[in-house]
Amino acid sequence: MTLDDVAQLTGGVVVGDGARQIRGICAPDDPRDDMLCVVWEKGLMAMIPLSVPVISDAGSISGRDGVELDNPKRSLVRLLPRFDRRAAGEIGISPGAAVHDQASVGEGSAIGPGCVVSEGAVIGRGVVLQANVFVGRGVEIGDGCAISASVVIQDLTRLGRGVCVHSGVVIGSDGFGYVREDDGRIVKIPQIGTVIIEDNVEIGANSTVDRATFGVTRIRRGAKIGSLVHIAHNCDIGEDCIIVGCVAIGGSVRIGRSSIVAGQAGIADHTKLGNGVTVAGRAGVTKDIKDGDTISGFPARNHSEETRFQASLRRIPDILKRLKNIERFIDDTITGGN
Amino acid sequence: MTLDDVAQLTGGVVVGDGARQIRGICAPDDPRDDMLCVVWEKGLMAMIPLSVPVISDAGSISGRDGVELDNPKRSLVRLLPRFDRRAAGEIGISPGAAVHDQASVGEGSAIGPGCVVSEGAVIGRGVVLQANVFVGRGVEIGDGCAISASVVIQDLTRLGRGVCVHSGVVIGSDGFGYVREDDGRIVKIPQIGTVIIEDNVEIGANSTVDRATFGVTRIRRGAKIGSLVHIAHNCDIGEDCIIVGCVAIGGSVRIGRSSIVAGQAGIADHTKLGNGVTVAGRAGVTKDIKDGDTISGFPARNHSEETRFQASLRRIPDILKRLKNIERFIDDTITGGN
Amino acid sequence: MTLDDVAQLTGGVVVGDGARQIRGICAPDDPRDDMLCVVWEKGLMAMIPLSVPVISDAGSISGRDGVELDNPKRSLVRLLPRFDRRAAGEIGISPGAAVHDQASVGEGSAIGPGCVVSEGAVIGRGVVLQANVFVGRGVEIGDGCAISASVVIQDLTRLGRGVCVHSGVVIGSDGFGYVREDDGRIVKIPQIGTVIIEDNVEIGANSTVDRATFGVTRIRRGAKIGSLVHIAHNCDIGEDCIIVGCVAIGGSVRIGRSSIVAGQAGIADHTKLGNGVTVAGRAGVTKDIKDGDTISGFPARNHSEETRFQASLRRIPDILKRLKNIERFIDDTITGGN
Repeated sequence: MTLDDVAQLTGGVVVGDGARQIRGICAPDDPRDDMLCVVWEKGLMAMIPLSVPVISDAGSISGRDGVELDNPKRSLVRLLPRFDRRAAGEIGISPGAAVHDQASVGEGSAIGPGCVVSEGAVIGRGVVLQANVFVGRGVEIGDGCAISASVVIQDLTRLGRGVCVHSGVVIGSDGFGYVREDDGRIVKIPQIGTVIIEDNVEIGANSTVDRATFGVTRIRRGAKIGSLVHIAHNCDIGEDCIIVGCVAIGGSVRIGRSSIVAGQAGIADHTKLGNGVTVAGRAGVTKDIKDGDTISGFPARNHSEETRFQASLRRIPDILKRLKNIERFIDDTITGGN
Repeated sequence: MTLDDVAQLTGGVVVGDGARQIRGICAPDDPRDDMLCVVWEKGLMAMIPLSVPVISDAGSISGRDGVELDNPKRSLVRLLPRFDRRAAGEIGISPGAAVHDQASVGEGSAIGPGCVVSEGAVIGRGVVLQANVFVGRGVEIGDGCAISASVVIQDLTRLGRGVCVHSGVVIGSDGFGYVREDDGRIVKIPQIGTVIIEDNVEIGANSTVDRATFGVTRIRRGAKIGSLVHIAHNCDIGEDCIIVGCVAIGGSVRIGRSSIVAGQAGIADHTKLGNGVTVAGRAGVTKDIKDGDTISGFPARNHSEETRFQASLRRIPDILKRLKNIERFIDDTITGGN
Repeated sequence: MTLDDVAQLTGGVVVGDGARQIRGICAPDDPRDDMLCVVWEKGLMAMIPLSVPVISDAGSISGRDGVELDNPKRSLVRLLPRFDRRAAGEIGISPGAAVHDQASVGEGSAIGPGCVVSEGAVIGRGVVLQANVFVGRGVEIGDGCAISASVVIQDLTRLGRGVCVHSGVVIGSDGFGYVREDDGRIVKIPQIGTVIIEDNVEIGANSTVDRATFGVTRIRRGAKIGSLVHIAHNCDIGEDCIIVGCVAIGGSVRIGRSSIVAGQAGIADHTKLGNGVTVAGRAGVTKDIKDGDTISGFPARNHSEETRFQASLRRIPDILKRLKNIERFIDDTITGGN
């Protein structure tokens, strides 16, 4: 691939030698002469040897070869697939898979070795079940879904089209619901609801999405969930939400569309978050949050308030010093040392 | 199912039309005319259209059909199974399972496709291994256990009767124990202990319970563990404890009976918690806790103390204002501005 | 095994009856007359009945049988394997495994039932894939690796020699990277990089190590990772690091050699930690940390500073009391109650 090819693919403009070959994509902290270095922060350009070709913002390249365009990060969406060395799976049902007689698999789908597809499951067209995937009874999987090795999709779960589920994810496991009897023993509330994952959702490795106690746990169109995230029973996660890794979302939480929940945050049971909410990393959300608010801390509150609050905490040494000055003044000057 | 049937099943009393049919159970935030709405908080009743039949506390229903009884939440234990559309597994050993010659499987058990049962394993009666479950050497699984797809139960682990293990759980993986050599290299301490899970324990999806370094990691009768919980080597979790999702419990922690640890809490290595302790969500427990105490915060302390402490932190702006007033008074009034 | 045998194996010195038999190893909180009790804290010795043989520090044993040596904890490395009742796997490829024609498996390796080894994978000598392990296309696994049941190793990942991967671990799943389009829709940045796990690394159950967006996610020689740890795309974890359970490490984080990150800590994207850094449990690291520093809190800072800061917070009740005294003095004495 040449810089001319890069420019054509991304809609950018070549600076320098358009015929120059690149062998891959590299990052500013590991620049290589034979790769295209993606630079989306201005300050980093000076650290990259002039011998390394770059792709960066319009007007930012001089003295080297490269491609300029608006929003270089976005160009990765088109560039990276050209260098992807992973191959697609083989179409068809592997001899090592166990597909029930009363299940259906659409054309162009690949069911890898060790996969189990249970009675009544309906798998669409162009679906990949990589290997050792379990698909429970009555599960529906839409066209073009990509389900990685060792995923578990329990009975009656429904996935829309183009859903991407990474390895080790468990969808539709029982919600966590019990009542304590008068004698102290704990009795399980049966968890008979389902899970619906809408189109183009992506779920990261080893995350868990519990089925509803009754009703539905729902992840709406286009939401992206990181790794080791827990989404409890009866949650409703809005369209185009971003839930980063290691987040814990309690039962019956509702999150509006286009909200972001950063890493290791937690959201308490029954909490409602509006549209466009941003929850900072490690925040602990304990009450409802209105549209567009940015929150942080634990208990989480408006981020500006939290910042002021945290700053106030750092004033205690100053407070103690001023207090001592006043006490000394009173003691020395006013009461005369008595 | 009619409201008369519901009343008979739950020991409740019909209000209105006992012959009215219901097709399922619904929640107050999604009321349906053809379903029974479970209302266990008084304030919610007004939000539910009068056309929706409800099940709620004695004396709480008027102007609509329903069933009244004490503790409506507890009635779910009997009601929900009637609407469960999931089917039981087929009894017998699936052709796709690998059961060792020197393993035994009790009658009425179902060993699904992709399951591996190793040498010397003893599986009781009426046990379900759903699919792709790994059972190590010498493992014992008691009668009536339900082991979901992709669970791993490592060598020598023992499960009592009626244990329910959800998908992706790993029991008996090595504990995390090392010594650092003088040259800085880290050497593993072999982890040769076992895990014992007693009767009626339930463990949520993708949780991990490590084997003891030596001795036993034990989860006692009736304890309920959520999803993505980590229980480290040599822990002893008491009877009827509730450990909510995403909790991390360090090595050699002991928790008494009927204690509750809420979501995302953490408990440091070697800590001892008494009976009936409540650990609030996201608390970080660093020292021993006595029977019946409720703790929160990090480092966790008595919840009332922590609440007072947190309230004191919010007084800093007031403190600064009062301090400034005093300083101004001294400056203006006493020292006369000098 | 006799105490004489123990002394010979560990380089220790017998106290009392060297011919005394032991049947296993026990801990101070569960002492047994027929086992060797390991005591590595002085205060515990008094709690152990004199009938129990112990292994402990030089000069610490009197009135009972035992073995004395320096660093008794380190002796576990040699002692515990002698009592390990777990058996090694059978060498060879199980009939229930699916090994691709174009994959290679070295001599002395054991590929258990349900394992899937994909095209182009190269597995070294003496490797164990326990059961239901997925090995993707072009993966390389070095000599002597031990891969437990239900591990997933995605395409192009490379493992060095002697790597130990526990059950449910996912290596090489896609990193979490998206760009938001102007219309609010989220588009995935393809994740085409790889993962390199160097010699003698150990990774705990259900942890996840994401592939790089482009370039490499690397875990260096001898690092030890706990359970339910998330290591995001493009991280570089240094030699001999210890990452305890339930830690979340964001994208492109770099950690130097011999650093320790304790349980439930989190490290923000792009942060750099030096060599020999210690991150306390539950700390949240948001900025670069220099060599040898010990940090705690959130946002994490030098541990001594954090300790002083936390102590200052507890002075607020005292501050309020002193402030009130001053106000009362001014009010009563100076302004005369006006």
